[in-house]
Amino acid sequence: MRIQPKLAKGTRDFNSQEVARRNYISQTIQKWFTRFGYQPIETPSFENSETLLGKYGEEGDRLIFKILRSGDFLRRVDPTAYEEKDLNKISSAIVDKALRYDLTVPFARYVVQNQNDLVFPFKRYQIQPVWRADRPQKGRYREFHQCDADVIGSKSLWQEVEFVQLYDAAFSELGVPVRIQINNRKILSGLAEVIEAEDKLIDFTVALDKLDKIGEEGVKNEMLERGISKKAIETIQPLFETTRTAEEDLQMLRDLLKDSEIGLEGVSELEYVVEQVAAIGLDKATLEVNITLARGLDYYTGIIYEVAAPKEVKLGSIGGGGRYDDLTGIFGMKDMSGVGISFGLDRIYLVLEELNLFPEAVVKGTEVLFINFGEKEAAYAMQAVTKLRRHAIRTEMYPDAGRMGRQMTYADRKQIPYVVLCGTKEIEASSYTVKNMASGEQFSQSFEELLALLKNK
Amino acid sequence: MRIQPKLAKGTRDFNSQEVARRNYISQTIQKWFTRFGYQPIETPSFENSETLLGKYGEEGDRLIFKILRSGDFLRRVDPTAYEEKDLNKISSAIVDKALRYDLTVPFARYVVQNQNDLVFPFKRYQIQPVWRADRPQKGRYREFHQCDADVIGSKSLWQEVEFVQLYDAAFSELGVPVRIQINNRKILSGLAEVIEAEDKLIDFTVALDKLDKIGEEGVKNEMLERGISKKAIETIQPLFETTRTAEEDLQMLRDLLKDSEIGLEGVSELEYVVEQVAAIGLDKATLEVNITLARGLDYYTGIIYEVAAPKEVKLGSIGGGGRYDDLTGIFGMKDMSGVGISFGLDRIYLVLEELNLFPEAVVKGTEVLFINFGEKEAAYAMQAVTKLRRHAIRTEMYPDAGRMGRQMTYADRKQIPYVVLCGTKEIEASSYTVKNMASGEQFSQSFEELLALLKNK
Repeated sequence: MRIQPKLAKGTRDFNSQEVARRNYISQTIQKWFTRFGYQPIETPSFENSETLLGKYGEEGDRLIFKILRSGDFLRRVDPTAYEEKDLNKISSAIVDKALRYDLTVPFARYVVQNQNDLVFPFKRYQIQPVWRADRPQKGRYREFHQCDADVIGSKSLWQEVEFVQLYDAAFSELGVPVRIQINNRKILSGLAEVIEAEDKLIDFTVALDKLDKIGEEGVKNEMLERGISKKAIETIQPLFETTRTAEEDLQMLRDLLKDSEIGLEGVSELEYVVEQVAAIGLDKATLEVNITLARGLDYYTGIIYEVAAPKEVKLGSIGGGGRYDDLTGIFGMKDMSGVGISFGLDRIYLVLEELNLFPEAVVKGTEVLFINFGEKEAAYAMQAVTKLRRHAIRTEMYPDAGRMGRQMTYADRKQIPYVVLCGTKEIEASSYTVKNMASGEQFSQSFEELLALLKNK
Repeated sequence: MRIQPKLAKGTRDFNSQEVARRNYISQTIQKWFTRFGYQPIETPSFENSETLLGKYGEEGDRLIFKILRSGDFLRRVDPTAYEEKDLNKISSAIVDKALRYDLTVPFARYVVQNQNDLVFPFKRYQIQPVWRADRPQKGRYREFHQCDADVIGSKSLWQEVEFVQLYDAAFSELGVPVRIQINNRKILSGLAEVIEAEDKLIDFTVALDKLDKIGEEGVKNEMLERGISKKAIETIQPLFETTRTAEEDLQMLRDLLKDSEIGLEGVSELEYVVEQVAAIGLDKATLEVNITLARGLDYYTGIIYEVAAPKEVKLGSIGGGGRYDDLTGIFGMKDMSGVGISFGLDRIYLVLEELNLFPEAVVKGTEVLFINFGEKEAAYAMQAVTKLRRHAIRTEMYPDAGRMGRQMTYADRKQIPYVVLCGTKEIEASSYTVKNMASGEQFSQSFEELLALLKNK
């Protein structure tokens, strides 16, 4: 039976144009990471299961791809667990590795393992694929690339300021005028404190996070359903008036949170970032305070970032990050505060595609094709081909002799701008007949003339 | 309990120097791929199991990393298979995806799936990690990178010639004078024919392949053990005299194989490659004919390549490849002849390291650090920091104020060549005090002078 080959669900091939465009994005981001003093590291695609499992909540554990043990994978299976179909128990017996789910936990593992060799504050970037067993949809794949920059070992708010600048610099160079939204976990904690619903912080923020989608009434209903009192909801009414400037927002929060120490700390931190960024100025991006932002609440402890694509592109966030006070605590290294951001390469690709922002010249195709007229001619051509390649010209000789039409079609379909013909006449004259595929012009040249033409085209 | 984090067996982290050095290698190879007219593609890290399993022999299947189904992975398990501990049956019930084992099978799958859009002969390169559950040792990891170039859809021997040139070009630029060894599967078939042991072709070549390791007598004994007759071994005696030139080797083979059509075809093909390569000339590499080369016998049908590191480095092959007449047949697309080569990135790294061939300048570290003297000073410094970054200077400001000693140590340990100090005096004078960390010199500059200094250093 012939196997009809198919891609695994949620994965993609990339053709040469797509590879070139993806590289264009990651190289632009990488360039700015480096200019901001971040250095690359890479970690393995899979980690021991115990390094990853339990770090992303129950839902995360479910979405992690697990790798079967080599050899007799059944040997550790408890027969009772099998009888009871205890999937968790069996899975931890037959699996010992798992695919990277994000770049943050492997980074924490790296820092703990290499703590004696690293210079702190340690600034690293990492551009690698991650894998999640999510249901695929537009902009969501089972294999996708994250581009992360993190700094660990400093509590300075300058880091928070710099990451706004970094997002601005990279997205501006890519031509995308993004909206960088910030919030602070401490403000959310403060609000929960003020309405005396600290135990309902998650319920409160999950509901608030939906403001964009379900509107003010929807959020209020959900809060009621989640057991937040009517009085509490009245208290936070000012949050629902969102048509203010960042300065007005911050003043409103200062009033609302006047009795919460942690809440006021959050407001001050946001204020600091907003002021410093205003003093330095941004290129194409805008900075917005968005109190409804509740991203990554499980681990962020200070600032929260989210980058929204321009409104005309219907796509979720294309970047995000925040500060976490105890990133490496999970691996036993305490009190290391970190802050970091991530760029979503695959979604940024969709944005650039939709806004038609890819430069023409990212694909580096073949520049000249030598036609193959037969053995003797090919041997003559190959001398020139070899020399042109040494001069950095992307050069091909058509491998098979004859069928001129097919060879020209090849050049045409591959959009090769120049074709060189060498027959008996050219060999005798030590010359090359060059055809410009766009204009149809054809002229005889020496090797030096040919080289100069291709170098300066 | 605190978890002591560990890397998964056979995997590695890469620090920034290692990442930079690995990129240097892959970018050099990639540059030459492009100059030879190869375009990049990328395929997913995992494929459906049925795409990979059964393509690499039994041993290969064992070494493929298998990914557990999501959700209820037990639902397809046959209870009888479980009682009988039938690992193969259970594994195919609980697993539906597998990690890429090489780049060739995914490439074949890609060609078949995209056959209507591709221009043939189709030339692609691919630089991606692959995974094998091998026992780790020096130069052998469970996650490693392959850099492959293949052309499919042409039987022209010029491809064979070009791949020798490509190996030569890339390795010469890396500074490694490699030995490129070639053989031809048809010669091995011819020899088996001549000694009337066609059914023992594998036994014959496996034994012959060990000549380097176990010597002439060892090979002969193994052949006898494998059921090859004494008379047959006498017939092929000339193979064991290996101190000849390529030309002499080919003449010897021509005599030995005079009654085998396929054998003589193999000799002619090798001869063609040797002659064309000699006519064009190589840079640093040498080309050798090595009849004992039996690499990838399961799928190669014509030429076989193997690249050996210089003799002073004790390491197996650092590259290899060959021609396969029916690469895409496994996916139902017949008669597509392909030929390709692979560079072993991880082993090439070891060679460059051992021979001390990495250029100094591959790591792109921070060029200038601004000392942080406090809020007002940092705000002043950040203006210059931002402008320098826009001028492509890799710039950092130390995030935390105070403790000058610690900040200087940071610069020192990160080998940052310039440090800038801005205190009250500098702010008043709109100037910057620059310290050259190597010479200890210190001088006051305007922003323009500072920029010029950093641009031209």
